[in-house]
Amino acid sequence: MTKLETQCAAAKKASYTLSAAGTDLKNMALESIAKALIENQDRWLLANSQDLAAAKAAGMRPALLDRLALTPERIAGVAEGLRQVAALPDPIGKVDRMETRPNGLIIGRRRVPLGVVAIIYEARPNVTVDAAALCLKSGNACVLRGGSEAIHSNMAAVEIMRKTLAEAGLPEDCTALVQDTGRETANELMRLDKYIDVLIPRGGAGLIRSVAKNASVPVIRTGEGVCHVYIDREADLQMGAEILFNAKCSRPSVCNAAECVVLHRDIAREFLAVAVPLLDRHEVELRCDEEALALLGSRGVPATEDDWNAEYGDYTLAVRIVGSAEEAIEFINAHSTGHSESLVTRDYFTAQRFLDQVDAAAVYVNASTRFTDGGEFGLGAEIGISTQKMHARGPMGLEELTSCKYIIYGQGQVR
Amino acid sequence: MTKLETQCAAAKKASYTLSAAGTDLKNMALESIAKALIENQDRWLLANSQDLAAAKAAGMRPALLDRLALTPERIAGVAEGLRQVAALPDPIGKVDRMETRPNGLIIGRRRVPLGVVAIIYEARPNVTVDAAALCLKSGNACVLRGGSEAIHSNMAAVEIMRKTLAEAGLPEDCTALVQDTGRETANELMRLDKYIDVLIPRGGAGLIRSVAKNASVPVIRTGEGVCHVYIDREADLQMGAEILFNAKCSRPSVCNAAECVVLHRDIAREFLAVAVPLLDRHEVELRCDEEALALLGSRGVPATEDDWNAEYGDYTLAVRIVGSAEEAIEFINAHSTGHSESLVTRDYFTAQRFLDQVDAAAVYVNASTRFTDGGEFGLGAEIGISTQKMHARGPMGLEELTSCKYIIYGQGQVR
Repeated sequence: MTKLETQCAAAKKASYTLSAAGTDLKNMALESIAKALIENQDRWLLANSQDLAAAKAAGMRPALLDRLALTPERIAGVAEGLRQVAALPDPIGKVDRMETRPNGLIIGRRRVPLGVVAIIYEARPNVTVDAAALCLKSGNACVLRGGSEAIHSNMAAVEIMRKTLAEAGLPEDCTALVQDTGRETANELMRLDKYIDVLIPRGGAGLIRSVAKNASVPVIRTGEGVCHVYIDREADLQMGAEILFNAKCSRPSVCNAAECVVLHRDIAREFLAVAVPLLDRHEVELRCDEEALALLGSRGVPATEDDWNAEYGDYTLAVRIVGSAEEAIEFINAHSTGHSESLVTRDYFTAQRFLDQVDAAAVYVNASTRFTDGGEFGLGAEIGISTQKMHARGPMGLEELTSCKYIIYGQGQVR
Repeated sequence: MTKLETQCAAAKKASYTLSAAGTDLKNMALESIAKALIENQDRWLLANSQDLAAAKAAGMRPALLDRLALTPERIAGVAEGLRQVAALPDPIGKVDRMETRPNGLIIGRRRVPLGVVAIIYEARPNVTVDAAALCLKSGNACVLRGGSEAIHSNMAAVEIMRKTLAEAGLPEDCTALVQDTGRETANELMRLDKYIDVLIPRGGAGLIRSVAKNASVPVIRTGEGVCHVYIDREADLQMGAEILFNAKCSRPSVCNAAECVVLHRDIAREFLAVAVPLLDRHEVELRCDEEALALLGSRGVPATEDDWNAEYGDYTLAVRIVGSAEEAIEFINAHSTGHSESLVTRDYFTAQRFLDQVDAAAVYVNASTRFTDGGEFGLGAEIGISTQKMHARGPMGLEELTSCKYIIYGQGQVR
């Protein structure tokens, strides 16, 4: 067995113990981890400073350095997050559909953990703890494979968590960190179906492509967001401009940010007159189809075919003009990643049609796409936003980290 | 585009129309298909006789010929199945979790179809209609790839269904049949993630392996059944023998049949004295570990390592002796395909532990594994029995053929 196999086999074994752990024990472990991370924060911060020094030396951009950095305030936030997860209802053990069948069999469907959840993610050390906490509460062992830039921070955090788990009476192998951050080990992880029950890749298009190509374990795709805002002919243009500005500019790097505005031809000129001054505040680059370019002149640049499928993650916006809501819906369904799509309109029937026909995890009428988030949706916390239709769609909370099993109480029945 | 791509793209397009179809329209189409299959049964039977003649000439075994054969009675049964699906509640359009968030956003989770469901299955022409009916009722277009031996029967059935769909005002591309039954086309289908939302392989271990190796579309594994019956020290031995006999012999070819009996050492000899005379009725071959062989003498044959993971589908049974319920659970979790597992005991605590710790879609106490079935579980009908934990586990009815989307009604909210 390779080192990774040994680690994943141990996680699988631990998952059986964890799946039987009661809510009180899991909550107590979560609160102990919160306490331990605060008490040992100097160790975590020291490890983080090693990562930061290496990243600076390698010329990492300031925005990414900021994502990588821990501070006592951020650690307090992580600990608070752990306590919030402890306070959430435990989905495990709930039984639904229970009934006595005509033959006397008592059949019910019990919520159970998935087993071992593997997560491949980028260089944000807080994700290490957040993800481990959601897995722990939902009774799943986790195998974490974070970005190489955060390896020292992640090793310190996982060491603290594992020690605390053991003290709480749970197997330390419930939380495992893959220390080799090379691509080959990631590819090996994607193929360990013997031990891994589900893989959640959190990252850019490159990772998602690699997973689609290599994974034999079941995968939940998360966080690909080519999101659109469609401004209908019947839109309140001021509202539309504010929604677009928020969806594009409030945090352009995240997956629920808008990448493309679709405009009804009849209001395109008037809308742009209201919206462009807002977009100017962040010097948003406008990649336009021919019609939009004719309206925007030198404020726009011509779009290429790639722009209609681009997740810029930056102050860049594609602009497309259509002749009807139907055409807008067709365009969106052809180019969306199925994350979040928004319509701005006053028209009742257009609103209903958009909600019916747009094929995405979250479909909005008269609101910003930026709300697609576990906290905003009332799930308490999330491990990612699924853009696929199987298993879970949209923000994934604790319930989305579970499976079920049918339990059947018999009295000797045969068929 | 290849012929298959063209077909799948058409199915994708049709799925959008079908997803918006109301319950009445779908039910009417199902009843019309039932009527059309009866009215055109001569055509269907003629096509089936072509398949049967070819299969006989190729030397197909009688049991398989029987599965391939249609009769007026079986067609009446298929039509009745269609009417039963029409009578089931429509899962599509239900909204749960709807609430008004503190910021005034009204957020709900609406049940929607998966989109396009591809099914690869063996040579049973009734499956073609059953699967198409479940997909239609759940608002999914389907791409059916049946076994080559049933190709004429399947072409006739799908032709009748497509004509009836068009007459009912639904796109005929809601139901598509892959006419090229070669392996390369199957492999191509497994990689058309652009059009296929989920693939359900129904078949033997070879198909499942091929899917695991080739598929890039999301997959629901179904129907792999290495099922165990564990006879505890505290078992009612007569009840245990009857349950084992039923689980092994009532229909050995199906996936919920037992393949292995696990015996507690303390009752093994006494249990075998009761059970073997029952198993003798079908001359069940007993593949035994050393201890069981010592008890059974010439009635048993030595098991090899392969026997502990074998799905015989025949009158063959592996026999394993253990020293405790814990050991039984560990053995079962190591060798089960996660389908159906049964315990026979009078002991309350052993029963609860087995239900808790055995990792399978259906876990039984004092009943035969043969009950794992959509009809027996009260789902009305099933498209297969999932042995994976993601998306659906156990018998898959209409609800398991759906996804969800969040719909959000705003009044101009930004974040």
